Amino acid sequence: MSTSANRSTPSARTVFFISDGTGITAETFGHSVLTQFDLRFKQIRLPFIDTLDKAHDALRKINDAYELDGQRPIIFSTLVKANLSKVVRQSKGMHMDLIQTFVEPLEQELGVKSTHTIGRSHTSTDSEEYKNRIEAINFSLAHDDGQSNKNLAEADVILVGVSRSGKTPTSLFLAMQYGIKAANYPLIPDDFAREKLPGGLLEYKSKIFGLSIAPDRLAEIRNERLPGSKYAALANCRYEVNEAEKMMRREGIRWMSSTTKSIEEISATILQEIKSEHRTD
Amino acid sequence: MSTSANRSTPSARTVFFISDGTGITAETFGHSVLTQFDLRFKQIRLPFIDTLDKAHDALRKINDAYELDGQRPIIFSTLVKANLSKVVRQSKGMHMDLIQTFVEPLEQELGVKSTHTIGRSHTSTDSEEYKNRIEAINFSLAHDDGQSNKNLAEADVILVGVSRSGKTPTSLFLAMQYGIKAANYPLIPDDFAREKLPGGLLEYKSKIFGLSIAPDRLAEIRNERLPGSKYAALANCRYEVNEAEKMMRREGIRWMSSTTKSIEEISATILQEIKSEHRTD
Repeated sequence: MSTSANRSTPSARTVFFISDGTGITAETFGHSVLTQFDLRFKQIRLPFIDTLDKAHDALRKINDAYELDGQRPIIFSTLVKANLSKVVRQSKGMHMDLIQTFVEPLEQELGVKSTHTIGRSHTSTDSEEYKNRIEAINFSLAHDDGQSNKNLAEADVILVGVSRSGKTPTSLFLAMQYGIKAANYPLIPDDFAREKLPGGLLEYKSKIFGLSIAPDRLAEIRNERLPGSKYAALANCRYEVNEAEKMMRREGIRWMSSTTKSIEEISATILQEIKSEHRTD
Repeated sequence: MSTSANRSTPSARTVFFISDGTGITAETFGHSVLTQFDLRFKQIRLPFIDTLDKAHDALRKINDAYELDGQRPIIFSTLVKANLSKVVRQSKGMHMDLIQTFVEPLEQELGVKSTHTIGRSHTSTDSEEYKNRIEAINFSLAHDDGQSNKNLAEADVILVGVSRSGKTPTSLFLAMQYGIKAANYPLIPDDFAREKLPGGLLEYKSKIFGLSIAPDRLAEIRNERLPGSKYAALANCRYEVNEAEKMMRREGIRWMSSTTKSIEEISATILQEIKSEHRTD
Protein backbone atom coordinates (compact mmCIF):
# COMPACT_ATOMS: atom_id res chain seq x y z
CA MET A 1 0.00 0.00 0.00
CA SER A 2 1.44 3.39 -0.88
CA THR A 3 0.41 7.02 -1.02
CA SER A 4 -2.19 7.69 -3.66
CA ALA A 5 -1.76 10.39 -6.25
CA ASN A 6 -4.18 13.29 -6.17
CA ARG A 7 -5.46 12.37 -9.58
CA SER A 8 -7.06 8.99 -9.57
CA THR A 9 -5.58 6.44 -11.94
CA PRO A 10 -7.32 3.26 -13.09
CA SER A 11 -5.38 1.22 -10.53
CA ALA A 12 -6.41 3.31 -7.49
CA ARG A 13 -9.34 1.46 -5.97
CA THR A 14 -11.55 3.19 -3.48
CA VAL A 15 -11.67 1.55 -0.06
CA PHE A 16 -14.38 2.29 2.49
CA PHE A 17 -14.10 1.68 6.23
CA ILE A 18 -17.65 1.55 7.54
CA SER A 19 -18.70 1.16 11.14
CA ASP A 20 -21.50 1.95 13.54
CA GLY A 21 -18.75 2.96 15.98
CA THR A 22 -15.45 4.76 15.53
CA GLY A 23 -14.35 2.61 12.60
CA ILE A 24 -10.98 2.03 14.25
CA THR A 25 -11.27 -1.74 14.15
CA ALA A 26 -12.36 -1.75 10.50
CA GLU A 27 -9.57 0.64 9.58
CA THR A 28 -6.80 -1.06 11.57
CA PHE A 29 -7.75 -4.39 10.13
CA GLY A 30 -8.26 -3.05 6.62
CA HIS A 31 -4.84 -1.37 6.64
CA SER A 32 -3.27 -4.60 7.75
CA VAL A 33 -4.83 -6.48 4.85
CA LEU A 34 -4.19 -3.77 2.24
CA THR A 35 -0.52 -3.60 3.27
CA GLN A 36 -0.24 -7.03 1.66
CA PHE A 37 -0.79 -5.40 -1.74
CA ASP A 38 1.66 -3.18 -3.51
CA LEU A 39 -1.10 -0.96 -4.87
CA ARG A 40 -2.47 2.49 -4.24
CA PHE A 41 -5.88 2.92 -2.65
CA LYS A 42 -8.16 5.89 -2.08
CA GLN A 43 -9.45 5.56 1.45
CA ILE A 44 -12.71 6.87 2.85
CA ARG A 45 -13.78 6.54 6.48
CA LEU A 46 -17.46 6.36 7.32
CA PRO A 47 -17.72 6.04 11.10
CA PHE A 48 -20.89 6.28 13.23
CA ILE A 49 -23.18 4.76 10.59
CA ASP A 50 -25.86 3.98 13.15
CA THR A 51 -29.17 4.78 11.46
CA LEU A 52 -30.91 3.59 8.30
CA ASP A 53 -30.55 7.06 6.79
CA LYS A 54 -26.81 7.01 7.28
CA ALA A 55 -26.61 3.47 5.90
CA HIS A 56 -28.42 4.60 2.74
CA ASP A 57 -26.05 7.54 2.52
CA ALA A 58 -23.10 5.12 2.72
CA LEU A 59 -24.70 2.97 0.01
CA ARG A 60 -24.91 6.01 -2.27
CA LYS A 61 -21.28 6.95 -1.62
CA ILE A 62 -20.12 3.45 -2.49
CA ASN A 63 -22.16 3.40 -5.70
CA ASP A 64 -20.86 6.87 -6.64
CA ALA A 65 -17.28 5.65 -6.20
CA TYR A 66 -18.09 2.66 -8.39
CA GLU A 67 -19.41 4.95 -11.14
CA LEU A 68 -16.42 7.27 -10.86
CA ASP A 69 -13.72 4.59 -10.70
CA GLY A 70 -15.27 2.05 -13.03
CA GLN A 71 -14.23 -0.59 -10.48
CA ARG A 72 -15.87 -2.12 -7.42
CA PRO A 73 -14.88 -0.32 -4.23
CA ILE A 74 -13.61 -2.52 -1.41
CA ILE A 75 -15.53 -2.31 1.84
CA PHE A 76 -14.31 -3.22 5.30
CA SER A 77 -17.25 -3.05 7.65
CA THR A 78 -18.05 -3.67 11.30
CA LEU A 79 -21.77 -3.00 11.29
CA VAL A 80 -23.26 -4.97 14.14
CA LYS A 81 -26.93 -4.34 13.39
CA ALA A 82 -28.18 -6.66 10.66
CA ASN A 83 -30.59 -4.11 9.15
CA LEU A 84 -27.79 -1.57 8.60
CA SER A 85 -25.42 -4.18 7.26
CA LYS A 86 -28.10 -5.35 4.84
CA VAL A 87 -28.46 -1.87 3.33
CA VAL A 88 -24.73 -1.42 2.82
CA ARG A 89 -24.43 -4.90 1.29
CA GLN A 90 -26.79 -3.85 -1.49
CA SER A 91 -24.11 -1.52 -2.83
CA LYS A 92 -21.83 -2.33 -5.75
CA GLY A 93 -18.79 -3.03 -3.59
CA MET A 94 -16.73 -6.03 -2.58
CA HIS A 95 -17.83 -6.66 0.99
CA MET A 96 -15.49 -7.69 3.78
CA ASP A 97 -17.92 -7.89 6.66
CA LEU A 98 -15.89 -8.60 9.78
CA ILE A 99 -18.86 -9.17 12.04
CA GLN A 100 -20.85 -11.60 9.91
CA THR A 101 -17.73 -13.48 8.91
CA PHE A 102 -16.62 -14.21 12.45
CA VAL A 103 -19.45 -13.56 14.90
CA GLU A 104 -21.85 -16.06 13.39
CA PRO A 105 -19.43 -19.02 13.47
CA LEU A 106 -18.57 -18.04 17.04
CA GLU A 107 -22.24 -18.11 18.07
CA GLN A 108 -22.30 -21.71 16.86
CA GLU A 109 -19.11 -22.61 18.66
CA LEU A 110 -20.01 -20.95 21.95
CA GLY A 111 -23.62 -22.02 21.88
CA VAL A 112 -24.89 -18.54 22.75
CA LYS A 113 -26.24 -15.64 20.76
CA SER A 114 -24.13 -12.51 20.51
CA THR A 115 -25.30 -9.43 22.36
CA HIS A 116 -24.77 -7.18 19.34
CA THR A 117 -22.89 -4.61 21.33
CA ILE A 118 -21.10 -2.05 19.26
CA GLY A 119 -17.39 -1.57 18.86
CA ARG A 120 -14.17 -2.25 20.68
CA SER A 121 -14.23 -3.62 24.18
CA HIS A 122 -12.83 -0.42 25.60
CA THR A 123 -15.16 2.06 24.03
CA SER A 124 -17.26 1.64 27.14
CA THR A 125 -16.15 4.47 29.39
CA ASP A 126 -17.54 2.71 32.46
CA SER A 127 -15.41 -0.41 32.13
CA GLU A 128 -12.49 -1.06 34.46
CA GLU A 129 -10.29 -1.54 31.42
CA TYR A 130 -11.10 1.92 30.07
CA LYS A 131 -10.51 3.57 33.44
CA ASN A 132 -7.19 1.76 33.75
CA ARG A 133 -6.12 3.02 30.35
CA ILE A 134 -6.94 6.64 31.17
CA GLU A 135 -5.19 6.30 34.53
CA ALA A 136 -2.17 4.77 32.79
CA ILE A 137 -2.03 7.65 30.28
CA ASN A 138 -2.08 10.19 33.11
CA PHE A 139 0.58 8.23 34.99
CA SER A 140 2.84 7.93 31.95
CA LEU A 141 2.51 11.65 31.18
CA ALA A 142 3.27 12.63 34.79
CA HIS A 143 6.32 10.33 34.76
CA ASP A 144 7.63 11.29 31.32
CA ASP A 145 11.32 12.11 31.02
CA GLY A 146 12.10 11.67 34.72
CA GLN A 147 9.66 14.42 35.72
CA SER A 148 8.61 12.74 38.94
CA ASN A 149 9.89 10.13 41.37
CA LYS A 150 6.49 10.00 43.05
CA ASN A 151 4.51 6.76 43.06
CA LEU A 152 7.13 4.79 41.13
CA ALA A 153 5.98 1.80 43.17
CA GLU A 154 2.81 1.94 41.03
CA ALA A 155 4.68 1.77 37.72
CA ASP A 156 4.38 -1.43 35.70
CA VAL A 157 7.59 -0.63 33.87
CA ILE A 158 10.27 2.08 33.98
CA LEU A 159 11.95 2.75 30.65
CA VAL A 160 15.49 4.12 30.59
CA GLY A 161 17.74 5.18 27.72
CA VAL A 162 19.57 8.14 26.21
CA SER A 163 17.61 11.17 25.03
CA ARG A 164 15.63 10.38 21.83
CA SER A 165 15.93 6.61 22.05
CA GLY A 166 12.14 6.26 21.83
CA LYS A 167 11.13 6.21 25.49
CA THR A 168 8.34 8.80 25.40
CA PRO A 169 6.23 7.52 22.49
CA THR A 170 6.71 3.95 23.72
CA SER A 171 5.53 4.87 27.24
CA LEU A 172 2.44 6.56 25.86
CA PHE A 173 1.66 3.69 23.52
CA LEU A 174 2.00 1.13 26.34
CA ALA A 175 -0.44 3.20 28.39
CA MET A 176 -2.93 3.85 25.61
CA GLN A 177 -3.00 0.41 24.03
CA TYR A 178 -2.46 -1.85 27.03
CA GLY A 179 -3.21 0.24 30.13
CA ILE A 180 0.41 -0.21 31.27
CA LYS A 181 1.73 2.44 33.66
CA ALA A 182 5.06 3.28 32.06
CA ALA A 183 7.43 5.81 33.62
CA ASN A 184 10.53 6.85 31.70
CA TYR A 185 13.91 8.27 32.71
CA PRO A 186 16.64 9.66 30.50
CA LEU A 187 20.19 8.39 30.99
CA ILE A 188 22.32 11.54 30.77
CA PRO A 189 26.05 12.39 30.87
CA ASP A 190 25.76 13.16 34.62
CA ASP A 191 24.64 9.59 35.24
CA PHE A 192 27.57 8.27 33.19
CA ALA A 193 30.05 10.42 35.15
CA ARG A 194 28.58 9.15 38.44
CA GLU A 195 28.44 5.62 37.01
CA LYS A 196 25.07 5.25 38.66
CA LEU A 197 21.45 4.94 37.62
CA PRO A 198 19.34 8.08 38.21
CA GLY A 199 18.57 8.44 41.93
CA GLY A 200 15.42 6.79 43.17
CA LEU A 201 15.42 4.06 40.52
CA LEU A 202 17.63 1.53 42.30
CA GLU A 203 14.90 0.06 44.45
CA TYR A 204 12.76 -0.57 41.35
CA LYS A 205 15.48 -2.24 39.32
CA SER A 206 13.35 -5.27 38.51
CA LYS A 207 10.88 -3.01 36.69
CA ILE A 208 13.47 -1.20 34.59
CA PHE A 209 13.67 -1.88 30.87
CA GLY A 210 16.28 -0.20 28.66
CA LEU A 211 16.07 1.15 25.13
CA SER A 212 19.21 1.56 23.09
CA ILE A 213 19.70 2.80 19.54
CA ALA A 214 22.39 2.78 16.85
CA PRO A 215 24.54 5.95 17.25
CA ASP A 216 24.19 6.99 13.58
CA ARG A 217 20.40 6.74 13.75
CA LEU A 218 20.42 8.69 17.03
CA ALA A 219 22.58 11.42 15.46
CA GLU A 220 20.07 11.64 12.59
CA ILE A 221 17.11 12.03 14.96
CA ARG A 222 18.89 14.56 17.18
CA ASN A 223 20.04 16.58 14.18
CA GLU A 224 16.43 17.08 13.16
CA ARG A 225 15.83 18.61 16.56
CA LEU A 226 19.05 20.58 17.15
CA PRO A 227 20.98 20.69 13.87
CA GLY A 228 24.77 20.94 14.20
CA SER A 229 24.74 20.81 18.03
CA LYS A 230 27.21 18.90 20.17
CA TYR A 231 24.16 16.99 21.47
CA ALA A 232 23.52 15.68 17.95
CA ALA A 233 27.15 15.08 16.92
CA LEU A 234 27.91 11.49 15.96
CA ALA A 235 30.90 11.31 18.34
CA ASN A 236 28.70 12.40 21.25
CA CYS A 237 25.93 9.98 20.29
CA ARG A 238 28.51 7.16 20.17
CA TYR A 239 29.77 8.15 23.61
CA GLU A 240 26.30 8.31 25.18
CA VAL A 241 25.04 5.06 23.66
CA ASN A 242 28.22 3.25 24.65
CA GLU A 243 28.04 4.53 28.24
CA ALA A 244 24.34 3.75 28.52
CA GLU A 245 24.83 0.19 27.30
CA LYS A 246 27.77 -0.24 29.68
CA MET A 247 25.61 0.93 32.57
CA MET A 248 22.70 -1.35 31.65
CA ARG A 249 25.02 -4.34 31.38
CA ARG A 250 26.65 -3.51 34.71
CA GLU A 251 23.30 -3.13 36.45
CA GLY A 252 21.84 -6.25 34.86
CA ILE A 253 19.04 -4.33 33.12
CA ARG A 254 17.20 -5.97 30.22
CA TRP A 255 17.29 -3.84 27.10
CA MET A 256 16.54 -3.86 23.39
CA SER A 257 17.46 -1.73 20.40
CA SER A 258 14.81 0.63 19.06
CA THR A 259 16.77 1.40 15.87
CA THR A 260 14.57 -0.35 13.31
CA LYS A 261 11.53 -0.99 15.48
CA SER A 262 8.21 0.82 15.53
CA ILE A 263 6.68 1.87 18.84
CA GLU A 264 4.15 -0.95 18.34
CA GLU A 265 6.94 -3.51 18.04
CA ILE A 266 8.93 -2.11 20.97
CA SER A 267 5.79 -2.04 23.12
CA ALA A 268 4.71 -5.57 22.23
CA THR A 269 8.23 -6.83 23.05
CA ILE A 270 8.29 -5.06 26.42
CA LEU A 271 4.82 -6.35 27.23
CA GLN A 272 6.00 -9.91 26.59
CA GLU A 273 8.87 -9.34 29.00
CA ILE A 274 6.82 -7.83 31.79
CA LYS A 275 3.77 -10.04 31.53
CA SER A 276 3.94 -12.80 29.03
CA GLU A 277 0.46 -14.02 29.71
CA HIS A 278 -2.43 -11.66 30.07
CA ARG A 279 -5.26 -13.37 31.86
CA THR A 280 -7.72 -10.67 32.70
CA ASP A 281 -10.52 -9.00 30.77
CA MET B 1 -16.76 -9.91 27.48
CA SER B 2 -15.95 -9.45 31.14
CA THR B 3 -13.09 -9.96 33.55
CA SER B 4 -12.25 -13.60 34.09
CA ALA B 5 -11.99 -15.08 37.55
CA ASN B 6 -8.61 -16.33 38.67
CA ARG B 7 -9.91 -19.84 38.88
CA SER B 8 -11.02 -21.08 35.52
CA THR B 9 -14.63 -22.19 35.27
CA PRO B 10 -16.06 -24.43 32.56
CA SER B 11 -17.43 -21.41 30.70
CA ALA B 12 -14.11 -19.53 30.46
CA ARG B 13 -12.74 -20.34 27.03
CA THR B 14 -9.12 -19.69 26.25
CA VAL B 15 -8.53 -17.25 23.42
CA PHE B 16 -5.19 -16.93 21.62
CA PHE B 17 -4.05 -13.90 19.63
CA ILE B 18 -1.30 -15.14 17.34
CA SER B 19 0.75 -13.04 14.96
CA ASP B 20 4.11 -12.90 13.23
CA GLY B 21 4.14 -9.21 14.18
CA THR B 22 3.00 -7.35 17.28
CA GLY B 23 -0.38 -9.06 17.41
CA ILE B 24 -2.12 -5.71 17.77
CA THR B 25 -4.37 -6.25 14.77
CA ALA B 26 -5.36 -9.76 15.88
CA GLU B 27 -6.02 -8.54 19.40
CA THR B 28 -7.92 -5.37 18.47
CA PHE B 29 -10.09 -7.32 16.10
CA GLY B 30 -10.52 -10.26 18.46
CA HIS B 31 -11.60 -7.96 21.30
CA SER B 32 -14.12 -6.35 19.03
CA VAL B 33 -15.65 -9.71 18.15
CA LEU B 34 -15.53 -11.12 21.69
CA THR B 35 -17.25 -8.01 23.03
CA GLN B 36 -20.32 -9.32 21.23
CA PHE B 37 -20.50 -12.16 23.74
CA ASP B 38 -21.45 -11.83 27.36
CA LEU B 39 -18.93 -14.46 28.41
CA ARG B 40 -15.60 -14.59 30.17
CA PHE B 41 -12.47 -15.50 28.25
CA LYS B 42 -8.90 -16.29 29.26
CA GLN B 43 -6.69 -14.39 26.85
CA ILE B 44 -3.18 -15.28 25.76
CA ARG B 45 -1.07 -13.18 23.41
CA LEU B 46 1.52 -14.87 21.23
CA PRO B 47 3.21 -12.12 19.19
CA PHE B 48 6.31 -12.45 16.99
CA ILE B 49 5.58 -16.06 15.94
CA ASP B 50 7.95 -15.82 12.98
CA THR B 51 9.76 -19.16 12.84
CA LEU B 52 8.65 -22.78 12.52
CA ASP B 53 9.94 -23.49 16.04
CA LYS B 54 7.78 -20.74 17.49
CA ALA B 55 4.78 -21.93 15.46
CA HIS B 56 5.20 -25.44 16.90
CA ASP B 57 5.47 -23.92 20.35
CA ALA B 58 2.18 -22.06 19.74
CA LEU B 59 0.59 -25.31 18.54
CA ARG B 60 1.60 -26.99 21.81
CA LYS B 61 0.21 -24.14 23.90
CA ILE B 62 -3.13 -24.33 22.11
CA ASN B 63 -3.34 -28.10 22.56
CA ASP B 64 -2.39 -27.76 26.24
CA ALA B 65 -5.21 -25.26 26.73
CA TYR B 66 -7.58 -27.66 25.02
CA GLU B 67 -6.57 -30.46 27.40
CA LEU B 68 -6.85 -28.20 30.44
CA ASP B 69 -10.16 -26.55 29.52
CA GLY B 70 -11.85 -29.52 27.89
CA GLN B 71 -13.02 -27.06 25.21
CA ARG B 72 -11.56 -25.83 21.92
CA PRO B 73 -9.59 -22.62 22.35
CA ILE B 74 -10.49 -19.79 19.99
CA ILE B 75 -7.67 -18.48 17.83
CA PHE B 76 -7.43 -15.09 16.16
CA SER B 77 -4.40 -15.13 13.91
CA THR B 78 -2.63 -12.85 11.46
CA LEU B 79 0.13 -15.16 10.29
CA VAL B 80 1.12 -14.04 6.82
CA LYS B 81 3.47 -16.89 5.96
CA ALA B 82 1.56 -19.95 4.81
CA ASN B 83 3.98 -22.46 6.35
CA LEU B 84 3.58 -20.93 9.83
CA SER B 85 -0.17 -20.65 9.48
CA LYS B 86 -0.32 -24.31 8.43
CA VAL B 87 1.40 -25.46 11.63
CA VAL B 88 -0.90 -23.47 13.89
CA ARG B 89 -3.97 -24.70 12.02
CA GLN B 90 -3.08 -28.27 12.97
CA SER B 91 -3.91 -27.45 16.59
CA LYS B 92 -7.18 -28.32 18.30
CA GLY B 93 -8.55 -24.79 18.19
CA MET B 94 -11.27 -22.91 16.37
CA HIS B 95 -9.35 -20.89 13.81
CA MET B 96 -10.20 -17.33 12.84
CA ASP B 97 -7.50 -16.65 10.30
CA LEU B 98 -7.79 -13.01 9.30
CA ILE B 99 -5.26 -13.18 6.50
CA GLN B 100 -6.52 -16.26 4.68
CA THR B 101 -10.13 -15.20 5.08
CA PHE B 102 -9.67 -11.82 3.44
CA VAL B 103 -6.37 -11.67 1.57
CA GLU B 104 -7.14 -14.53 -0.78
CA PRO B 105 -10.48 -13.15 -2.00
CA LEU B 106 -8.77 -9.77 -2.44
CA GLU B 107 -6.05 -11.30 -4.61
CA GLN B 108 -8.84 -12.54 -6.90
CA GLU B 109 -10.59 -9.19 -6.92
CA LEU B 110 -7.47 -7.09 -7.51
CA GLY B 111 -5.91 -9.51 -9.96
CA VAL B 112 -2.52 -9.39 -8.23
CA LYS B 113 -0.74 -11.57 -5.71
CA SER B 114 -0.22 -10.22 -2.22
CA THR B 115 3.32 -9.32 -1.20
CA HIS B 116 3.03 -11.15 2.13
CA THR B 117 4.40 -8.24 4.08
CA ILE B 118 3.96 -8.52 7.79
CA GLY B 119 1.78 -6.43 10.04
CA ARG B 120 0.15 -3.04 10.15
CA SER B 121 0.92 -0.47 7.52
CA HIS B 122 2.68 1.76 10.01
CA THR B 123 4.99 -0.74 11.59
CA SER B 124 7.51 0.30 8.95
CA THR B 125 9.61 2.94 10.66
CA ASP B 126 10.78 4.34 7.32
CA SER B 127 7.33 5.20 6.02
CA GLU B 128 6.14 8.79 5.82
CA GLU B 129 3.06 7.78 7.77
CA TYR B 130 5.13 6.47 10.68
CA LYS B 131 7.34 9.57 10.76
CA ASN B 132 4.24 11.77 10.73
CA ARG B 133 2.80 9.88 13.68
CA ILE B 134 5.98 10.26 15.76
CA GLU B 135 6.17 13.94 14.83
CA ALA B 136 2.52 14.38 15.78
CA ILE B 137 3.09 12.71 19.17
CA ASN B 138 6.00 15.06 19.89
CA PHE B 139 3.94 18.05 18.75
CA SER B 140 0.94 17.08 20.87
CA LEU B 141 3.13 16.55 23.94
CA ALA B 142 4.90 19.89 23.47
CA HIS B 143 1.53 21.61 23.09
CA ASP B 144 -0.27 19.84 25.92
CA ASP B 145 -2.23 21.97 28.37
CA GLY B 146 -1.31 25.29 26.77
CA GLN B 147 2.42 24.74 27.35
CA SER B 148 3.48 26.47 24.17
CA ASN B 149 2.15 28.98 21.65
CA LYS B 150 4.98 28.14 19.26
CA ASN B 151 4.20 26.68 15.86
CA LEU B 152 0.44 26.68 16.37
CA ALA B 153 0.21 27.33 12.63
CA GLU B 154 1.34 23.70 12.23
CA ALA B 155 -1.45 22.29 14.40
CA ASP B 156 -4.19 20.30 12.67
CA VAL B 157 -6.55 20.95 15.55
CA ILE B 158 -6.51 22.91 18.82
CA LEU B 159 -8.67 21.42 21.56
CA VAL B 160 -10.07 23.69 24.25
CA GLY B 161 -12.13 22.93 27.35
CA VAL B 162 -12.13 23.12 31.14
CA SER B 163 -9.53 21.19 33.12
CA ARG B 164 -10.22 17.41 33.01
CA SER B 165 -12.67 17.52 30.12
CA GLY B 166 -10.59 14.93 28.23
CA LYS B 167 -8.32 17.15 26.13
CA THR B 168 -4.97 15.51 26.90
CA PRO B 169 -5.76 11.84 26.23
CA THR B 170 -7.74 12.85 23.14
CA SER B 171 -4.82 14.91 21.78
CA LEU B 172 -2.43 12.00 22.29
CA PHE B 173 -4.81 9.51 20.73
CA LEU B 174 -5.34 11.73 17.67
CA ALA B 175 -1.56 11.93 17.26
CA MET B 176 -0.85 8.27 17.85
CA GLN B 177 -3.68 6.75 15.84
CA TYR B 178 -4.07 9.26 13.03
CA GLY B 179 -0.88 11.35 12.94
CA ILE B 180 -2.93 14.46 13.75
CA LYS B 181 -1.02 17.34 15.36
CA ALA B 182 -3.33 18.24 18.22
CA ALA B 183 -2.54 21.11 20.58
CA ASN B 184 -4.72 21.64 23.63
CA TYR B 185 -5.52 24.63 25.83
CA PRO B 186 -7.38 24.72 29.12
CA LEU B 187 -10.19 27.24 29.53
CA ILE B 188 -9.67 28.63 33.05
CA PRO B 189 -11.47 31.09 35.35
CA ASP B 190 -9.10 33.89 34.18
CA ASP B 191 -10.34 33.42 30.62
CA PHE B 192 -13.95 33.56 31.82
CA ALA B 193 -13.29 36.79 33.77
CA ARG B 194 -11.67 38.34 30.68
CA GLU B 195 -14.44 36.89 28.50
CA LYS B 196 -11.78 36.04 25.96
CA LEU B 197 -10.14 32.94 24.53
CA PRO B 198 -6.57 32.29 25.76
CA GLY B 199 -4.17 34.73 24.06
CA GLY B 200 -2.65 33.60 20.80
CA LEU B 201 -5.55 31.36 19.83
CA LEU B 202 -7.73 33.94 18.11
CA GLU B 203 -5.96 33.81 14.78
CA TYR B 204 -6.39 30.02 14.67
CA LYS B 205 -10.10 30.01 15.50
CA SER B 206 -10.99 27.82 12.53
CA LYS B 207 -8.83 25.03 13.96
CA ILE B 208 -10.30 25.15 17.46
CA PHE B 209 -12.54 22.33 18.64
CA GLY B 210 -14.14 22.38 22.09
CA LEU B 211 -14.78 19.61 24.60
CA SER B 212 -17.45 20.02 27.23
CA ILE B 213 -18.60 17.66 29.97
CA ALA B 214 -21.54 17.26 32.35
CA PRO B 215 -20.74 19.13 35.60
CA ASP B 216 -21.53 16.14 37.85
CA ARG B 217 -19.21 13.88 35.87
CA LEU B 218 -16.51 16.57 35.97
CA ALA B 219 -16.87 16.89 39.75
CA GLU B 220 -16.46 13.12 40.04
CA ILE B 221 -13.26 13.13 37.96
CA ARG B 222 -11.79 16.15 39.75
CA ASN B 223 -12.62 14.67 43.16
CA GLU B 224 -10.48 11.66 42.34
CA ARG B 225 -7.60 14.03 41.78
CA LEU B 226 -8.13 16.65 44.51
CA PRO B 227 -10.78 15.32 46.91
CA GLY B 228 -12.87 17.96 48.67
CA SER B 229 -11.21 20.90 46.89
CA LYS B 230 -12.99 23.99 45.60
CA TYR B 231 -11.67 22.95 42.17
CA ALA B 232 -13.68 19.72 42.39
CA ALA B 233 -16.82 21.15 44.02
CA LEU B 234 -19.99 20.63 41.99
CA ALA B 235 -20.91 24.34 42.16
CA ASN B 236 -17.51 25.30 40.75
CA CYS B 237 -17.71 22.64 38.04
CA ARG B 238 -21.16 23.97 37.07
CA TYR B 239 -19.78 27.50 36.90
CA GLU B 240 -16.77 26.56 34.77
CA VAL B 241 -18.69 24.36 32.35
CA ASN B 242 -21.40 26.99 31.95
CA GLU B 243 -18.85 29.75 31.29
CA ALA B 244 -16.85 27.60 28.88
CA GLU B 245 -19.94 26.70 26.86
CA LYS B 246 -21.00 30.36 26.83
CA MET B 247 -17.58 31.34 25.50
CA MET B 248 -17.58 28.65 22.82
CA ARG B 249 -21.05 29.67 21.66
CA ARG B 250 -20.05 33.34 21.59
CA GLU B 251 -16.89 32.62 19.61
CA GLY B 252 -18.64 30.26 17.22
CA ILE B 253 -16.47 27.29 18.20
CA ARG B 254 -17.64 23.76 17.36
CA TRP B 255 -17.80 21.55 20.41
CA MET B 256 -19.02 18.21 21.69
CA SER B 257 -19.62 16.61 25.06
CA SER B 258 -17.08 14.06 26.27
CA THR B 259 -19.28 12.88 29.16
CA THR B 260 -20.16 9.39 27.92
CA LYS B 261 -17.65 9.12 25.09
CA SER B 262 -14.38 7.21 24.97
CA ILE B 263 -11.25 8.90 23.66
CA GLU B 264 -11.63 6.74 20.53
CA GLU B 265 -15.15 8.08 19.94
CA ILE B 266 -14.20 11.69 20.65
CA SER B 267 -11.19 11.39 18.33
CA ALA B 268 -13.13 9.78 15.49
CA THR B 269 -15.76 12.53 15.76
CA ILE B 270 -13.16 15.31 15.68
CA LEU B 271 -11.41 13.66 12.75
CA GLN B 272 -14.67 13.67 10.81
CA GLU B 273 -15.04 17.37 11.49
CA ILE B 274 -11.52 18.35 10.50
CA LYS B 275 -11.11 16.07 7.52
CA SER B 276 -14.10 14.05 6.57
CA GLU B 277 -12.38 12.28 3.74
CA HIS B 278 -8.91 10.90 4.12
CA ARG B 279 -7.39 10.39 0.71
CA THR B 280 -3.74 9.66 1.32
CA ASP B 281 -1.82 6.51 2.23
